[in-house]
Amino acid sequence: MQTTEKPVIALTLGDPAGIGAELIARLLALPEVATLAHVVLVGDRWLWDEGQRIAGVQTATQDVASLSEVRARVDSSVPAFLAMDTVTAAQVQRGVSQAPGGASVLAVLNVCMDAAKRREVDAICFAPLNKFAMKLGGLKYEDELHHFAEYLGVTGYFCEFNTLGDLWTSRVSSHIPLKDAARFLSRERIKDATRLIYRSLQAAGFAQPKVAVAAFNPHGGDGGTCGREEVEIIAPAVAELNAEGMAISGPFPADTIFLKARDGEYQAIVTMYHDQGQIAIKLMGFSKGVTVQGGLPVPITTPAHGTAYDIAGQGKADVNAILNAFRIAARMGLAQLQSRA
Amino acid sequence: MQTTEKPVIALTLGDPAGIGAELIARLLALPEVATLAHVVLVGDRWLWDEGQRIAGVQTATQDVASLSEVRARVDSSVPAFLAMDTVTAAQVQRGVSQAPGGASVLAVLNVCMDAAKRREVDAICFAPLNKFAMKLGGLKYEDELHHFAEYLGVTGYFCEFNTLGDLWTSRVSSHIPLKDAARFLSRERIKDATRLIYRSLQAAGFAQPKVAVAAFNPHGGDGGTCGREEVEIIAPAVAELNAEGMAISGPFPADTIFLKARDGEYQAIVTMYHDQGQIAIKLMGFSKGVTVQGGLPVPITTPAHGTAYDIAGQGKADVNAILNAFRIAARMGLAQLQSRA
Repeated sequence: MQTTEKPVIALTLGDPAGIGAELIARLLALPEVATLAHVVLVGDRWLWDEGQRIAGVQTATQDVASLSEVRARVDSSVPAFLAMDTVTAAQVQRGVSQAPGGASVLAVLNVCMDAAKRREVDAICFAPLNKFAMKLGGLKYEDELHHFAEYLGVTGYFCEFNTLGDLWTSRVSSHIPLKDAARFLSRERIKDATRLIYRSLQAAGFAQPKVAVAAFNPHGGDGGTCGREEVEIIAPAVAELNAEGMAISGPFPADTIFLKARDGEYQAIVTMYHDQGQIAIKLMGFSKGVTVQGGLPVPITTPAHGTAYDIAGQGKADVNAILNAFRIAARMGLAQLQSRA
Repeated sequence: MQTTEKPVIALTLGDPAGIGAELIARLLALPEVATLAHVVLVGDRWLWDEGQRIAGVQTATQDVASLSEVRARVDSSVPAFLAMDTVTAAQVQRGVSQAPGGASVLAVLNVCMDAAKRREVDAICFAPLNKFAMKLGGLKYEDELHHFAEYLGVTGYFCEFNTLGDLWTSRVSSHIPLKDAARFLSRERIKDATRLIYRSLQAAGFAQPKVAVAAFNPHGGDGGTCGREEVEIIAPAVAELNAEGMAISGPFPADTIFLKARDGEYQAIVTMYHDQGQIAIKLMGFSKGVTVQGGLPVPITTPAHGTAYDIAGQGKADVNAILNAFRIAARMGLAQLQSRA
């Protein structure tokens, strides 16, 4: 097997009724892409052809019969292509969530994860999928992250990171009633969420990540007079992380920490509940951002935006978010590769 | 008494250790100001002179012996000045919170409120104060709003509105532990907060305000599967407000409603807890915004930013926020005047 410094990145076309294939067509037309990775595109040939036609760009690919061949190819400047037959054009109605499209997404991602288990793939970057279509098509979990974790046999802490440029966020609790969020706060959960984002940032190339932990109460609890979680739970968790050697800061009032992060003081904010982070990053332009699935044995990234059914097929989808998702996958995939060397 | 369409606006110099006097000097130098109102400046003459010197601008004023004289003056193009002796220059150390400065702020504001009770003043716009100095100087409440409400004998619902351009926000609960926020949600409180901001926006010149109510839970409770407050409390309150003839919308997920408001779909968002609104409006640039004290018998406005002790005396304070505060006071003061005609 040829030794190289480039990771193998599997790319998928996403929900066939959305903008995924045209986005991947635009992405592979960028010269930067082949320089960062051994790229392998996994999916249906008709969909890839259609994506290129819609995007108005053509990129030559080289067929492979198995993902095990990708790393060993002599010329990695041409993306590899693993053709699958998961869905027919007749089964897809552009702009509509349907079971065949959702089942196609699952089948392709599972092939990529199988290859990742065999270490033939170092990271996965997938084009936007549609959760509802996937549920119609056989997804048994609340979202794709839980499917990935189950499929990959993850037993530790995992969570989604929302990233925008060099700012990443994670959360200690997510889709639960807000009245219950206080009960979800624990030193262990805060430490798990913080360690995970810290180590993931290191894997993405930040040697000494600057990570801040948000407070829970207004004004950060005003010294314990407006809520006790900062004093009793969050600050002790931060102190314990510091004792482990991680230079974590906080807790900081939630209504000012994002201003500091936007100014570059921090690379990551660990948030205490769903809307605390989501209000901020959506205002900061998260649809341009990237979602990183944290805590899995293989790095998996995707654009934060969705399938954009309303503009699918029009050739006007913006490539920047998936380009950023690809770049993060490439950095994390490289770290993955090097950690095994 | 001369009849006129201009309201009487009382301006104060704020905390004497901060940027207030220099801000008012810059404000009164703007030709727009005298066109919108009968302006009367209330405060210490030495402080006003110093503010003009720091700002490097001079504006002629006309002394009055009482606020009762302001409306009747023939030439309102020259601001009136009611001189008070509340603090000496020797008692003020620039950039430091001290009791004499805080007591001065209270004394001046009380004179303005006395005049408002006698309907000699239609609105008040105050330069930034310092709560800690005011507490040292005799403030008996948690903040100035509670002092205003008590001093003016308010018995109904009152709350602070945070405004930024044409976007206003109010909150149903404020400085309480987040774990208790769910218990503060009630139909009555939501209706009170919504009616108040709706009517205040009307008083500020929006004939048909577009007001949205935020949800409480992630994804707006996802149809009741992720928290019940939307179904059981917020939506019924909105329906009751609609039945009263107010075209209120909501509840909407908190992580997207601010994007819509920023795009101009709404003039006001009623938020369910402190950080829900504060995270958003601080990211949107609230330090450039205006705080409106809602629910008082006289409109009172102030810049959202503080005394800026760190740059006080340097002549570089930005006039825009207090100009906006003045404009809102003028619009609301005019509505106040017309409602009595």
